[in-house]
Amino acid sequence: MDHINIIDFKEGMSVISFYLVKNAEVKIANVSKKKYLDVILTDKTGEVNAKVWGMEEDALDVFKIGKLVKIKAMVKIWNEKPQLTIHKYRIVVSSDNQDIDKFVPTAPGNVNEYYEYIISRIDMMKNRKMSMLVRALLLDKIDDFMIYPAAKSNHHSVRSGLIYHEYRMLKLAEAIKTVYDDIDIDLLNAGIILHDLYKTDEMKISEIGLVTGYTPEGNLLGHISLGVAAIEKKAYELGIEDECVLLLKHMILSHHYYPEYGSPVFPMFLEAEILHHIDMIDARVYDFTDIYRSLDGGEVSEPIFSLDRRRVYKPKMTEDEEN
Amino acid sequence: MDHINIIDFKEGMSVISFYLVKNAEVKIANVSKKKYLDVILTDKTGEVNAKVWGMEEDALDVFKIGKLVKIKAMVKIWNEKPQLTIHKYRIVVSSDNQDIDKFVPTAPGNVNEYYEYIISRIDMMKNRKMSMLVRALLLDKIDDFMIYPAAKSNHHSVRSGLIYHEYRMLKLAEAIKTVYDDIDIDLLNAGIILHDLYKTDEMKISEIGLVTGYTPEGNLLGHISLGVAAIEKKAYELGIEDECVLLLKHMILSHHYYPEYGSPVFPMFLEAEILHHIDMIDARVYDFTDIYRSLDGGEVSEPIFSLDRRRVYKPKMTEDEEN
Amino acid sequence: MDHINIIDFKEGMSVISFYLVKNAEVKIANVSKKKYLDVILTDKTGEVNAKVWGMEEDALDVFKIGKLVKIKAMVKIWNEKPQLTIHKYRIVVSSDNQDIDKFVPTAPGNVNEYYEYIISRIDMMKNRKMSMLVRALLLDKIDDFMIYPAAKSNHHSVRSGLIYHEYRMLKLAEAIKTVYDDIDIDLLNAGIILHDLYKTDEMKISEIGLVTGYTPEGNLLGHISLGVAAIEKKAYELGIEDECVLLLKHMILSHHYYPEYGSPVFPMFLEAEILHHIDMIDARVYDFTDIYRSLDGGEVSEPIFSLDRRRVYKPKMTEDEEN
Amino acid sequence: MDHINIIDFKEGMSVISFYLVKNAEVKIANVSKKKYLDVILTDKTGEVNAKVWGMEEDALDVFKIGKLVKIKAMVKIWNEKPQLTIHKYRIVVSSDNQDIDKFVPTAPGNVNEYYEYIISRIDMMKNRKMSMLVRALLLDKIDDFMIYPAAKSNHHSVRSGLIYHEYRMLKLAEAIKTVYDDIDIDLLNAGIILHDLYKTDEMKISEIGLVTGYTPEGNLLGHISLGVAAIEKKAYELGIEDECVLLLKHMILSHHYYPEYGSPVFPMFLEAEILHHIDMIDARVYDFTDIYRSLDGGEVSEPIFSLDRRRVYKPKMTEDEEN
Amino acid sequence: MDHINIIDFKEGMSVISFYLVKNAEVKIANVSKKKYLDVILTDKTGEVNAKVWGMEEDALDVFKIGKLVKIKAMVKIWNEKPQLTIHKYRIVVSSDNQDIDKFVPTAPGNVNEYYEYIISRIDMMKNRKMSMLVRALLLDKIDDFMIYPAAKSNHHSVRSGLIYHEYRMLKLAEAIKTVYDDIDIDLLNAGIILHDLYKTDEMKISEIGLVTGYTPEGNLLGHISLGVAAIEKKAYELGIEDECVLLLKHMILSHHYYPEYGSPVFPMFLEAEILHHIDMIDARVYDFTDIYRSLDGGEVSEPIFSLDRRRVYKPKMTEDEEN
Amino acid sequence: MDHINIIDFKEGMSVISFYLVKNAEVKIANVSKKKYLDVILTDKTGEVNAKVWGMEEDALDVFKIGKLVKIKAMVKIWNEKPQLTIHKYRIVVSSDNQDIDKFVPTAPGNVNEYYEYIISRIDMMKNRKMSMLVRALLLDKIDDFMIYPAAKSNHHSVRSGLIYHEYRMLKLAEAIKTVYDDIDIDLLNAGIILHDLYKTDEMKISEIGLVTGYTPEGNLLGHISLGVAAIEKKAYELGIEDECVLLLKHMILSHHYYPEYGSPVFPMFLEAEILHHIDMIDARVYDFTDIYRSLDGGEVSEPIFSLDRRRVYKPKMTEDEEN
Repeated sequence: MDHINIIDFKEGMSVISFYLVKNAEVKIANVSKKKYLDVILTDKTGEVNAKVWGMEEDALDVFKIGKLVKIKAMVKIWNEKPQLTIHKYRIVVSSDNQDIDKFVPTAPGNVNEYYEYIISRIDMMKNRKMSMLVRALLLDKIDDFMIYPAAKSNHHSVRSGLIYHEYRMLKLAEAIKTVYDDIDIDLLNAGIILHDLYKTDEMKISEIGLVTGYTPEGNLLGHISLGVAAIEKKAYELGIEDECVLLLKHMILSHHYYPEYGSPVFPMFLEAEILHHIDMIDARVYDFTDIYRSLDGGEVSEPIFSLDRRRVYKPKMTEDEEN
Repeated sequence: MDHINIIDFKEGMSVISFYLVKNAEVKIANVSKKKYLDVILTDKTGEVNAKVWGMEEDALDVFKIGKLVKIKAMVKIWNEKPQLTIHKYRIVVSSDNQDIDKFVPTAPGNVNEYYEYIISRIDMMKNRKMSMLVRALLLDKIDDFMIYPAAKSNHHSVRSGLIYHEYRMLKLAEAIKTVYDDIDIDLLNAGIILHDLYKTDEMKISEIGLVTGYTPEGNLLGHISLGVAAIEKKAYELGIEDECVLLLKHMILSHHYYPEYGSPVFPMFLEAEILHHIDMIDARVYDFTDIYRSLDGGEVSEPIFSLDRRRVYKPKMTEDEEN
Repeated sequence: MDHINIIDFKEGMSVISFYLVKNAEVKIANVSKKKYLDVILTDKTGEVNAKVWGMEEDALDVFKIGKLVKIKAMVKIWNEKPQLTIHKYRIVVSSDNQDIDKFVPTAPGNVNEYYEYIISRIDMMKNRKMSMLVRALLLDKIDDFMIYPAAKSNHHSVRSGLIYHEYRMLKLAEAIKTVYDDIDIDLLNAGIILHDLYKTDEMKISEIGLVTGYTPEGNLLGHISLGVAAIEKKAYELGIEDECVLLLKHMILSHHYYPEYGSPVFPMFLEAEILHHIDMIDARVYDFTDIYRSLDGGEVSEPIFSLDRRRVYKPKMTEDEEN
Repeated sequence: MDHINIIDFKEGMSVISFYLVKNAEVKIANVSKKKYLDVILTDKTGEVNAKVWGMEEDALDVFKIGKLVKIKAMVKIWNEKPQLTIHKYRIVVSSDNQDIDKFVPTAPGNVNEYYEYIISRIDMMKNRKMSMLVRALLLDKIDDFMIYPAAKSNHHSVRSGLIYHEYRMLKLAEAIKTVYDDIDIDLLNAGIILHDLYKTDEMKISEIGLVTGYTPEGNLLGHISLGVAAIEKKAYELGIEDECVLLLKHMILSHHYYPEYGSPVFPMFLEAEILHHIDMIDARVYDFTDIYRSLDGGEVSEPIFSLDRRRVYKPKMTEDEEN
Repeated sequence: MDHINIIDFKEGMSVISFYLVKNAEVKIANVSKKKYLDVILTDKTGEVNAKVWGMEEDALDVFKIGKLVKIKAMVKIWNEKPQLTIHKYRIVVSSDNQDIDKFVPTAPGNVNEYYEYIISRIDMMKNRKMSMLVRALLLDKIDDFMIYPAAKSNHHSVRSGLIYHEYRMLKLAEAIKTVYDDIDIDLLNAGIILHDLYKTDEMKISEIGLVTGYTPEGNLLGHISLGVAAIEKKAYELGIEDECVLLLKHMILSHHYYPEYGSPVFPMFLEAEILHHIDMIDARVYDFTDIYRSLDGGEVSEPIFSLDRRRVYKPKMTEDEEN
Repeated sequence: MDHINIIDFKEGMSVISFYLVKNAEVKIANVSKKKYLDVILTDKTGEVNAKVWGMEEDALDVFKIGKLVKIKAMVKIWNEKPQLTIHKYRIVVSSDNQDIDKFVPTAPGNVNEYYEYIISRIDMMKNRKMSMLVRALLLDKIDDFMIYPAAKSNHHSVRSGLIYHEYRMLKLAEAIKTVYDDIDIDLLNAGIILHDLYKTDEMKISEIGLVTGYTPEGNLLGHISLGVAAIEKKAYELGIEDECVLLLKHMILSHHYYPEYGSPVFPMFLEAEILHHIDMIDARVYDFTDIYRSLDGGEVSEPIFSLDRRRVYKPKMTEDEEN
């Protein structure tokens, strides 16, 4: 039986396939007082709540967070969302030939290609001190950088979302430079590469590359201050004295723009200003196209948290052109 | 004697050249109670205050707003800004061979080329109803559109600033589309062309193409509501019923983003969202590069009104690369 | 057995009567996994949640939204609110002699009388162009206008609430005019009649005249922008060129006063200013007297959503004078 | 020679008439270092700045604040406003037969009539305790109440502006009551009479009845807290225990509505809510009609401080109907 | 069996002990439709939800609010919080030798000692009028003052929390005075003693000294306005005319600092300013140390309501030094 | 002739004494077009504007910024402030026996004593890593720290204002610790010492120790981010790995409390919270006592910029007790 994508679940469907366990907890039923297992399953297309009633002792050994499980289940609709009642389940064995990576929500495209492109931007920087500084900072974090999401629940909150976000921002910077020659593309690229890099120190991720929470450093300082401090330390370590150290610290500091979003200063030079807008555009394109996937043309969404509770409308025009 | 640009005025300079009269008023001296003429002169590089002491009867016939005047004057510095004391002045005659257009602060480049480019974007729209609607709206305003500034005192507040602003935004949209294929470029282009078009009904301009104030319609409704109403009327006139009418009205309505800046709704689809950011980027590039012209590398400006009283820093790096 | 009003339900009551079905959905019990019907019933005095346990196949044919149903049920209190457990139910037949209109929460008074009064205000306008414009706009929407509520859940959210709201505002304008002779009563009346008229395009209503949601136009533009555009189009259609077109558009645009409530401009002339306050007074009188009905004298309410979460106090004095 | 009203001053006019001295100060000229007298003159129609150059020793004996002066002067326009250069001046003597009251900007109508009307509202209150309390509070302040302005520089900032403001609010309450029978008119009237009464303790006025500044009590507590405390003390003094004491204190406390305008609580019952709107309407009618006097039909004003820097538009329609 | 503190409850514990009933309500089970008792129990260390399934008729006679009950129960974890399933329960009798005061969350230390200290601060005031006024106001409220909490759910929301809060603030004022000699310690002490005194009129408490809600006066006026009015009345009653009456009213009025927190004026003299900061420090020390009790060193809390949804971090350093 | 303090200048006084030149600029008179010297003179008690009319060539050699000058001048009042007209002036020579330090507005007390006290707080820290880190950071900046003001124009904007501010905060911390034993005094002291230390990198000062402006680093990053980065670098340099590094960075980051005042995070542990309040108290005591010096008892000040435009009232009580 072929895998049925979570996004395609409909009332009454019978499902036999593999899914990834994102969470699993034992709970006790309200009235009957019996234990049951409350599970969140995920695949590349979304996530779904599932219940194992009349739970057996070994259930938690099968439903391990970050592992695949094979289930037989029925889809019902609860509060307008699909929910699974699981009837059978077992551990996945090697003879199943399942590749867990196919189940983790992951940024599209080839991560290595993104990496190569980012490195090429560093290579082409004319200011060798800046090039050296950015490379050193990036390489210190490179393992995390390759798999980290860009956020806990907003835009790019998928495995390798961070590198994908930066890759697209660099492409966007390159495109914008074709219109505005006044932009210092090297400085802008350096700002893009560093601006969210310290999310790797701010957030904790699970084995499969999804955010599970914030570190104490993330809570007490935030990725912006972590970034400013990291640049200071690395420049000192490398003995770099150059205006770019000041400029890059300012770009990190100002890229959220508004004090209430964490930036104590507004952008004060052109590339810092542009960095903010590029960051916004890439996040918004991600969010809108992501929300469109669950809407029909002409339909209005529920309020969307990551868009400050705005509703989204999917144009029919767009729909038509898609077909 | 060659023309000395206003931006180059220094204390003690003696100036003999032609300038454009932006404003002229008779005033009375504080203590001596004598009349004098208080003038604002402009050329492509900036504007300067000038005084004609011991004013003669015919002075106002010479210093006519929107006309060229030839003066002999001395530069002094007053409150850290240059000021002229005018010793001689006369009307400009045809034998002077002066072209007034060379003195009006004007957007760079060729306005006809911008026009051709804009029309070409309309021509290539696949949705013929949208194409017809946008073309009709543009052509109704085309004479004003070719010469209007985009603002009274902020970004692009020069002759033909409006068409220049829209031209660059279209170029930027084209560049962004190369990165994000999901964008409906026709819809985005239509939004760009219409978004500020009704500034031509909102603001009054002088003969030489600079804003002198707001119309009652501009004050009571603003260019956003004027635009929404104009689309409604034109679609009715042309008998167009198509989703694009709704979408374009929403794009106009939401392009200032925040209620306190005049948008009662936030963008609800991707192209409306992108329109806002493209508008901001083009305005900010204009503002920053404009402010840079009066700063040295490493210098911090006074608070800038059009940037919400932010200060601007001109990087030395940028300076270096310029040289 | 006489009809028991929903507002009078008490714990343990046995109820046999007719009620209007506002909503009905099949749900599945948490633990027993049996289907049941979850219903909202309403009459003129309020609404109540009801459950049909052990639901039969034909239940949904009986509990049709917008239709009357006859039930036998028991009242219990759940989370401090009454809830019905329905034991018997049947379709209402003509021999029941029930008039559905007696069950729909509806504005008090005679809608036709309101209509006559509104038309009389248009008739008496001295400016014939304004009179013609307002009449044409009103008549285009007259069927909806007679039955629409004024809101989804705030003030006047009952059938014909919109016309009732405007009727009372016109009466209030007439009263205020006796004190302030400077007010142009025709202009004010025109503004009152048009100010919320395009809620009929903003909201969708059910068969029985209660709001069920927003239209795409309502979401993307809102009733204010819809109104401004409608005036523009109609004036064009009728060939009306008169200052009143501008004034009426401004009154629509500014009547919510604050940008964060949807008005991009503040009122700029007297009648626009007064329109806002009349709108507020009528809404607040409705809200306070509505909330008073569920309070005893000297009692403080829970936070009220439509009053920005303010609490309401019902004076004992008022109570005393009532008796 | 007839009196020329200040509102009618035009460039070059020669003026011989009586004006009221609102302020007079000796100043020293910037460069010549000579003393001159800087004066503000007023009549019922406005106020004007005036200079006495080559000032004589006795000038300050003539230009006494709050007294009439006879002058011969020339009008010039300075910064778009009229200004007087005074050539001759003298003290006003009894044989001039000038009545100073004709020169003080004063509320229109008959103050005694306002007083009678206000007392009649107190007389008709059914709750005798409330009647007694309001009467006692009013009579304690009656002398000041008859002449105080309602504000320093906003609406009703003229002699007897306070009693005029309350009179019109009572008339407005009476009118509104004809539409909304649920309003307790006695309670509303009591709130109107007390709401601004303690401005007489908050502000200091000059001999001629115009505000000169704030008292320490006004600065440290404000008229709202002064009013709440006064009601508490008077109810105690008179031995009144009745719900109205609480209600009236709440009405005073909440009548500015927003915390940032001085009300720590929002209105919590109907009459407190209505009091706020009546206060706003009367203030706004005053402000708009006042600003209209200096505008032509179709003209837009400068930003108006008392309207939170909004601009005002005077409709041509209104103008037409005036004629 | 020893008492097990609520803060120490762990999954699966069997509990036999006495607890205080904070609340008890009969409810009906979702599906089975059986009645059960829903109880909140408390001791000095916290509170816990408990259920009595298969509830008997007399259960409500045992679970009386404000009384002790002896129970046998099992601890389970529900939504990450402990919950009790009660198997046995009985009334507490005198032979149990239980002192109810040992179960009520109460401020630490000796209330009589706090009282003596506060009186001693009044005794030492040099200004005898102020001393008389403050003493009279305090003594009018002394019974409530000895047992009231300082808040419903924020800092010091325990029995006698109010007097404890003021005691610590007086100690803090004494300490600060050692550094800043310019502070008038008598005035500051008077402000401290009065600043929250009228919370006793604002809030209602239960028999055991915990807040159950707000009075109408509390809702309509708040403790700040109640305090200002009380000072006015008492000064009148005692015939005190002295600047201290104005100063103390201002201190009450301004001690919340921001309009949106209820202060219509900001502090205008030094002691009013210091009063605010002392109030904040004492509240924050209470809150932080209270939250620390449920955290391990290095751990970050959930968002804390009374700290405007800030998270709290408990330093490991502090932890280390504790051990 | 004895020195007359600037605070004591009265209209018409003749002054012969020494003053410090804070600023001097050549200007040109409005009408006469003659050059004059516009000077700001200062002494310990305040500053005053002065004019040298009919300026001689060498005037600028005498009026050197940061130097003493001897003048003979007349006091007049201009715009309610004293102004000097200087008739004679000369350079100060050694035989004048004037000590420039007596003229610079300087923090009271002995700077060396403050230094000793601060060092003693570092010496007594139990955590030796924290002690080492704080000492190293302080000593790197010690020369600037001894003379820097704490601000450009707000509280402690006098020479050595920064060290004085920190000294008093440490004394205050010591006092508060006597009341709240839960405070970690070492951590709090470390936060106090570091919190404003990087104002020495943020602001530029003149030779005499008064702030002249901001550095590029100050503008682009601010003293808070400079401080966070400095701690990071120094801990790295010294090889210190300890929780205190994180805690101190957080204390710097959060000490302004509100995002709009530059703190991207609120305090998350007790000592960070207390640091903010101690900072506020010391600043406010300075500001209020400073403003009191120019007020009489019972007088209200103009709006004060550094108190967010609040007015200040000087109690008469305080006055009385002073005498």
